[in-house]
Amino acid sequence: MNNHEKFMRAAIKLSIENVESGNGGPFGAVIVKDGKIVATGQNQVTTSNDPTAHAEVTAIRNACKELGTFQLDDCDLYTSCEPCPMCLGAIYWARPKRVFYANTKKDAAEINFDDDFIYKELELEDYTKRSIPFEQILRDEALEAFQKWQTSELKEEY
Amino acid sequence: MNNHEKFMRAAIKLSIENVESGNGGPFGAVIVKDGKIVATGQNQVTTSNDPTAHAEVTAIRNACKELGTFQLDDCDLYTSCEPCPMCLGAIYWARPKRVFYANTKKDAAEINFDDDFIYKELELEDYTKRSIPFEQILRDEALEAFQKWQTSELKEEY
Repeated sequence: MNNHEKFMRAAIKLSIENVESGNGGPFGAVIVKDGKIVATGQNQVTTSNDPTAHAEVTAIRNACKELGTFQLDDCDLYTSCEPCPMCLGAIYWARPKRVFYANTKKDAAEINFDDDFIYKELELEDYTKRSIPFEQILRDEALEAFQKWQTSELKEEY
Repeated sequence: MNNHEKFMRAAIKLSIENVESGNGGPFGAVIVKDGKIVATGQNQVTTSNDPTAHAEVTAIRNACKELGTFQLDDCDLYTSCEPCPMCLGAIYWARPKRVFYANTKKDAAEINFDDDFIYKELELEDYTKRSIPFEQILRDEALEAFQKWQTSELKEEY
């Protein structure tokens, strides 16, 4: 068994355990650096009352805490299921080196975890057609924060 | 001044204060239910070492904690800037009623917060062309968690 399979099996084990314990959805993830698991994550949406607590987001948060950084340089993420749009976004902000996944989003949709509608919403250029309406107001006032950011001496860019 | 403007100004104030304090990027958000702010969020990526700690995600987490739920029924989200793909995904999972935003993603790109590349990555059907490579392995083993989920008596669907 190669290392990729070893680490994916660890993620899969977490996904199965999460169902057996009743702690959340059937999803697990591990983050690996230098051949070692630095953090794990399981879906905890319902038990932690946190809709963002998907396995990948939880693993990313835990890994960043463990490594004392907000960027997962040279890390690999192994997730038992293809990431949803939220987790994909989180992955791009965290910037691991590679992502391995096992179940597909189609597999997830078949057990009623359907994120396809989010992808479709993201593609809608006309925001009034979204199922959650998005409306823009007060841009002229909000720009002040952006202007202050540009000249701030305290800022840490990322 | 109507209520929408009042709540957006609260989000904008948080975004400006976040720059002035040096706590993070120029982004703030508030979540409102029954005419009252139930939670707020500021970008805390660099100070909390959490790449997912955008203003919207932070506000969503705080609101769910405050309300003791993982769904933001009948809540409105006011964010000082148009949400990135991660936050958009989080919004769709949290399901507030409406979203109001002020600065646009184009405004954000102009001060080097460019999430446009994430939208482009999401659209790539060929995962090998992504800047972070995604590879599928061990699907047959991972399906076990999904099968267990379907028959689990402990599960809480969401």
